Amino acid sequence: MAGSTLGTILKVTTWGESHGKGIGVVVDGCPAGLPLTEEDIQACLDRRKPGQSRFTTKRQEADRVEILSGVFEGKTTGTPISMAVMNTDQRSRDYGNIMEVYRPGHADYTFDEKYGFRDYRGGGRSSGRETIGRVAAGAIAAKLLKSLGITVCAYTKAVGPYEADPAQFDPEEMYRNRLYMPDAGAAALAEAYLDRMMSECNSVGGVVECVIDGLPAGVGDPVFEKYDASLAKAILSIGAVKGFEIGDGFQAAKSVGSENNDAFRMDESGKIKKETNHAGGILGGISDGSRVVLRAAFKPTPSIAQQQKTVTRGMEETDIEIKGRHDPIIVPRAVVVVEAMAALTTADLLLLSMTSRLDRIQGFFGTPNYETYN
Amino acid sequence: MAGSTLGTILKVTTWGESHGKGIGVVVDGCPAGLPLTEEDIQACLDRRKPGQSRFTTKRQEADRVEILSGVFEGKTTGTPISMAVMNTDQRSRDYGNIMEVYRPGHADYTFDEKYGFRDYRGGGRSSGRETIGRVAAGAIAAKLLKSLGITVCAYTKAVGPYEADPAQFDPEEMYRNRLYMPDAGAAALAEAYLDRMMSECNSVGGVVECVIDGLPAGVGDPVFEKYDASLAKAILSIGAVKGFEIGDGFQAAKSVGSENNDAFRMDESGKIKKETNHAGGILGGISDGSRVVLRAAFKPTPSIAQQQKTVTRGMEETDIEIKGRHDPIIVPRAVVVVEAMAALTTADLLLLSMTSRLDRIQGFFGTPNYETYN
Amino acid sequence: MAGSTLGTILKVTTWGESHGKGIGVVVDGCPAGLPLTEEDIQACLDRRKPGQSRFTTKRQEADRVEILSGVFEGKTTGTPISMAVMNTDQRSRDYGNIMEVYRPGHADYTFDEKYGFRDYRGGGRSSGRETIGRVAAGAIAAKLLKSLGITVCAYTKAVGPYEADPAQFDPEEMYRNRLYMPDAGAAALAEAYLDRMMSECNSVGGVVECVIDGLPAGVGDPVFEKYDASLAKAILSIGAVKGFEIGDGFQAAKSVGSENNDAFRMDESGKIKKETNHAGGILGGISDGSRVVLRAAFKPTPSIAQQQKTVTRGMEETDIEIKGRHDPIIVPRAVVVVEAMAALTTADLLLLSMTSRLDRIQGFFGTPNYETYN
Amino acid sequence: MAGSTLGTILKVTTWGESHGKGIGVVVDGCPAGLPLTEEDIQACLDRRKPGQSRFTTKRQEADRVEILSGVFEGKTTGTPISMAVMNTDQRSRDYGNIMEVYRPGHADYTFDEKYGFRDYRGGGRSSGRETIGRVAAGAIAAKLLKSLGITVCAYTKAVGPYEADPAQFDPEEMYRNRLYMPDAGAAALAEAYLDRMMSECNSVGGVVECVIDGLPAGVGDPVFEKYDASLAKAILSIGAVKGFEIGDGFQAAKSVGSENNDAFRMDESGKIKKETNHAGGILGGISDGSRVVLRAAFKPTPSIAQQQKTVTRGMEETDIEIKGRHDPIIVPRAVVVVEAMAALTTADLLLLSMTSRLDRIQGFFGTPNYETYN
Repeated sequence: MAGSTLGTILKVTTWGESHGKGIGVVVDGCPAGLPLTEEDIQACLDRRKPGQSRFTTKRQEADRVEILSGVFEGKTTGTPISMAVMNTDQRSRDYGNIMEVYRPGHADYTFDEKYGFRDYRGGGRSSGRETIGRVAAGAIAAKLLKSLGITVCAYTKAVGPYEADPAQFDPEEMYRNRLYMPDAGAAALAEAYLDRMMSECNSVGGVVECVIDGLPAGVGDPVFEKYDASLAKAILSIGAVKGFEIGDGFQAAKSVGSENNDAFRMDESGKIKKETNHAGGILGGISDGSRVVLRAAFKPTPSIAQQQKTVTRGMEETDIEIKGRHDPIIVPRAVVVVEAMAALTTADLLLLSMTSRLDRIQGFFGTPNYETYN
Repeated sequence: MAGSTLGTILKVTTWGESHGKGIGVVVDGCPAGLPLTEEDIQACLDRRKPGQSRFTTKRQEADRVEILSGVFEGKTTGTPISMAVMNTDQRSRDYGNIMEVYRPGHADYTFDEKYGFRDYRGGGRSSGRETIGRVAAGAIAAKLLKSLGITVCAYTKAVGPYEADPAQFDPEEMYRNRLYMPDAGAAALAEAYLDRMMSECNSVGGVVECVIDGLPAGVGDPVFEKYDASLAKAILSIGAVKGFEIGDGFQAAKSVGSENNDAFRMDESGKIKKETNHAGGILGGISDGSRVVLRAAFKPTPSIAQQQKTVTRGMEETDIEIKGRHDPIIVPRAVVVVEAMAALTTADLLLLSMTSRLDRIQGFFGTPNYETYN
Repeated sequence: MAGSTLGTILKVTTWGESHGKGIGVVVDGCPAGLPLTEEDIQACLDRRKPGQSRFTTKRQEADRVEILSGVFEGKTTGTPISMAVMNTDQRSRDYGNIMEVYRPGHADYTFDEKYGFRDYRGGGRSSGRETIGRVAAGAIAAKLLKSLGITVCAYTKAVGPYEADPAQFDPEEMYRNRLYMPDAGAAALAEAYLDRMMSECNSVGGVVECVIDGLPAGVGDPVFEKYDASLAKAILSIGAVKGFEIGDGFQAAKSVGSENNDAFRMDESGKIKKETNHAGGILGGISDGSRVVLRAAFKPTPSIAQQQKTVTRGMEETDIEIKGRHDPIIVPRAVVVVEAMAALTTADLLLLSMTSRLDRIQGFFGTPNYETYN
Repeated sequence: MAGSTLGTILKVTTWGESHGKGIGVVVDGCPAGLPLTEEDIQACLDRRKPGQSRFTTKRQEADRVEILSGVFEGKTTGTPISMAVMNTDQRSRDYGNIMEVYRPGHADYTFDEKYGFRDYRGGGRSSGRETIGRVAAGAIAAKLLKSLGITVCAYTKAVGPYEADPAQFDPEEMYRNRLYMPDAGAAALAEAYLDRMMSECNSVGGVVECVIDGLPAGVGDPVFEKYDASLAKAILSIGAVKGFEIGDGFQAAKSVGSENNDAFRMDESGKIKKETNHAGGILGGISDGSRVVLRAAFKPTPSIAQQQKTVTRGMEETDIEIKGRHDPIIVPRAVVVVEAMAALTTADLLLLSMTSRLDRIQGFFGTPNYETYN
């Protein structure tokens, strides 16, 4: 079945394999009139680019995006925005052992089971390069949200056992260190840990946290289309994510009601506020007007240069050692991917939320015949 | 927008409020020929019924399900299966303060923001009673899966800080204690903890774990329709769930690649197996043929009899103390809801997976004209 | 797969067989705040009720609708509106030959092929009784549209070869004769023709026309979700419909560009108008602000008391003569079904059209941070 | 909202404007293992290419398709197949009056209403060039169907008042004349008529007929997802289509039951057949195993060189005369587009039909535990 399309109003379709001709995305349903340039997209793509530090792969990927449709005279037209990044680094290679041997922790085996064969020149659709399309689409969603006063910001919350301390949170620090970690002390410990693991040909997992500010109350629907449920699907759809939390997440399971409930109060400006935000900005699947907070757990990069036990396509036991240029941790480059998925989900549900109340719909279209109403 | 429908092939639509005329569900797309009776459904509903122990609410809910369509001569016909549980306990009550005062941790405030007003006679669509429709639908999905050799089983993994020990796992124990906890020792500690919290008018959170056995490899799609992503959405769509894990979940974020990767080996029967299952049965979003393991974190029941700070609909600060019959913990009654959501998602994606390979499709329909093929 | 759900924002799911326990529908996504009573629904259902004249079946069907959820204190709550009509006329009957013999022009054979067996107590899901759910849902859509100044009105355009003359169009006449035909002369000829066909144990086809007034320009989307394309699907989903036209329809195929193009002019109030409306109110799949006009061709009722050649389930040739109470023409009772499908489609696409322009979205949500916009 | 995606299992997303950088399509959900080359696609695209005869526009469009993803070693991989045709003919032009003046019969006005502005360099998304994506996708669907013994074939049924006579049907003739008309006599009359209309700066409408052979019974679903309803939507989504018929279509509305019902008989090989096919191969929305026959009515090309009354964007009345290279009739080039839409719809519903019966699903997956079944 078709698994490469996401969203209802703002619909995103990605295509492309790691070692094919290119990677791309079609964003359909973006409202008309949003100023948009290739630079808007490129700025986000550059944040996921490899080769930025010693903790990201040494592969050189130019990754220049081109907008192929849907933008006219600098603004979106309401029609599909097609974007592509053509692969430039396509020299022929020796894929020999990936072709025949299943890499542990990768999707080689499951692709073969599902499809009967696979493009063995890399991770195919399971490659991290597939996220180029997501990030390009996310850049549009983020800009749309920003035009409505809503911001989405993700950062590295934890690297292995080293966690950023909320008390040390420094928004500028996250752009100073190359781990996108908003706590200089934790970042230093994490970097030392990463260096040690790299020297052992090992890899490390971590956690990305994402906050959404400025969102009005009323986004998301009860039952199956809860805002947090849709966020969870979007985040788990990122390769290597193994867990999702909204608000206090698993910590809430150890809490008690008197602590976990967020008390309502009135603020000075006459608006309702919550004294705490254990809920993470969502009650009953619907945004409550406070900050949305979510977290994604990433497993360690499965490609490691250590010897691992596995089997071949022909079902013989063997060993594999994965050479080549691989990130020792996925998290820093995944920060912008989490942001993209959160922005896409939020924008889609925000647009859907416009239809929940007849009074507001009547305000939108006008109510021409109140007298004859029955 | 419409948030009460889930699934692509096996499509489920629930309806009904906690204090309306009834609760129901329409299951469309169930394959024809599955033996099905009201007893099959009732058996699952009885597992979520309140009043089973001192840890569940004292409310009496008969909850007798009736199948209204889609079953003929004891078998599903392939057309929509409509099921309803009519509310019998509809005496008029005093909803006074729920009507005017926003309960902390509930969706009262967000419903008012989204819809302009709400059915204040209880939780409405956010009530736990909405899960009756899910459980009824899940019973059908589970029976469908069972006819294909696939089982779905959930249980209580943790109550507050007390966690079942995998080493003490006893499948029969989960039906002996009323917490559905498969570890007698942990269950005893948890019960004592619950008693203490109840005496303090407090409530407790917990974790449900769910395992799916017998599923073939190849279920789920790359990119946005990953099996684990769809499971995450289904699980987070249950009220009070704040976190989701597949396999090692957040623990994977603290692990290293050499430990987290599952080595492939051949088993005695000539099939591929994994030596470990940190992945939880899913690689690249596609089932790998091993056991699927997921967990859901539930927050403490928000309705507690302690005094809490809140505001009124009219935006005045006030206090609220929630009287009445409420579960001190949601988890034991939510076990069957998690099972239902996992079964529905699995059945839907399994049916979708039939179309991934042309060779198998040709086997299904026949290949009548190989000669003229070009 | 699941074929009983229609719509994106306003989502309708029908259930029930002709001779099961009842027929029902769940309408999800209706905006909150719409005044709604069972009488609103019943008034529409009564228009499709049999037994109204000698041209409709003599079966007595009470068809009392009950609203089971989604309405509180007389207004829709934004949550699913479940409605049911329970079957009261369920005495056991002799379905013998329908059970074993395929009725020509009916779906008996195709249901058996698709599902392996079928509920042989009548037409099952292919019965005209399934339209009860559609009409109930359509009543809500029509009321929603009316609150926005939009009306949907269908009538009988033709009965066999007898066609209503636009020059004789009389809106009141359609409620005077029982054929819903807005031309007294044509209606008289059609009635005489019907009487003759009934005396010959034969049945007759016809055409329903539907007009939608008051719709703003901008509804519908380019490419696959054109307004007329969605109308076509909705109309063809009515059993017995074999053709669909928008505007001039098949007549346009015989026309030339200079005649078929509708010239644009300015009206007195400074608005754009079209001098003619060959297009039927839709250009490029998008409503143009003028009247929408569509037509549906209905085949003759397949159930006739003449002897017909057919085969049995066991694949033996035989003859069948269909006894019982059947409409000699479907069209008069189908008028309200066409209205319902047109209203549901129009309401859904109208709500979807709210998201096409950023300037209007900013007007809806406000534009809080123009200064920092980049 | 997003209107550029079609299908459930086989999902198609098109992008691109007439005068943008290119036109493309992403086909997601195509089963893995289908042999596919760019030549397969190009052969279909060449059939819609302009400049083939004096009845098609003189514009030169190279329209070379490139497959960008989803095919590996000559076979589809099951992942999205991205295809693009880059525009080569992009010299700057004078779009002056199209920019400011609404062309009658075009979507200029409705786009401006819907989106606030539009890409005025041509028809944008309403251009006939958008069908390049459909035809490319349809080529894949047709090849998939062919591998299962199913063929889709469309041709010109009528040009203005000149209709192909079924008694003169000659399948080879349709490739001999450039109108794709399978009746040499009718084609000659139609050509003379077209020459006359062209000399008068006028344009002509027509009808395309499409037949689908080899389809098994059981495709399509009751109620809203009827096979003919889905075909109707797909066909009406083609620009300029104003009517749709299945089987006898509007002629059935003038018929009587005794003539319109198709009698069932047994054929020599022991299979059920219909003596006639007024139904057009579909009963109750489900294919019956006989030939599927549909028709699409196309309006005359709206772009004509005659002077027409219209208004400007600034709402002033004016005249317009549309210069340039335009087809005097859309039909011959639309034949392959109708084929594409019919093939896409048929392939999608055929794949969906695999899940209707438990016995066949058990045959597909195996039934591992019959003993323990309850």
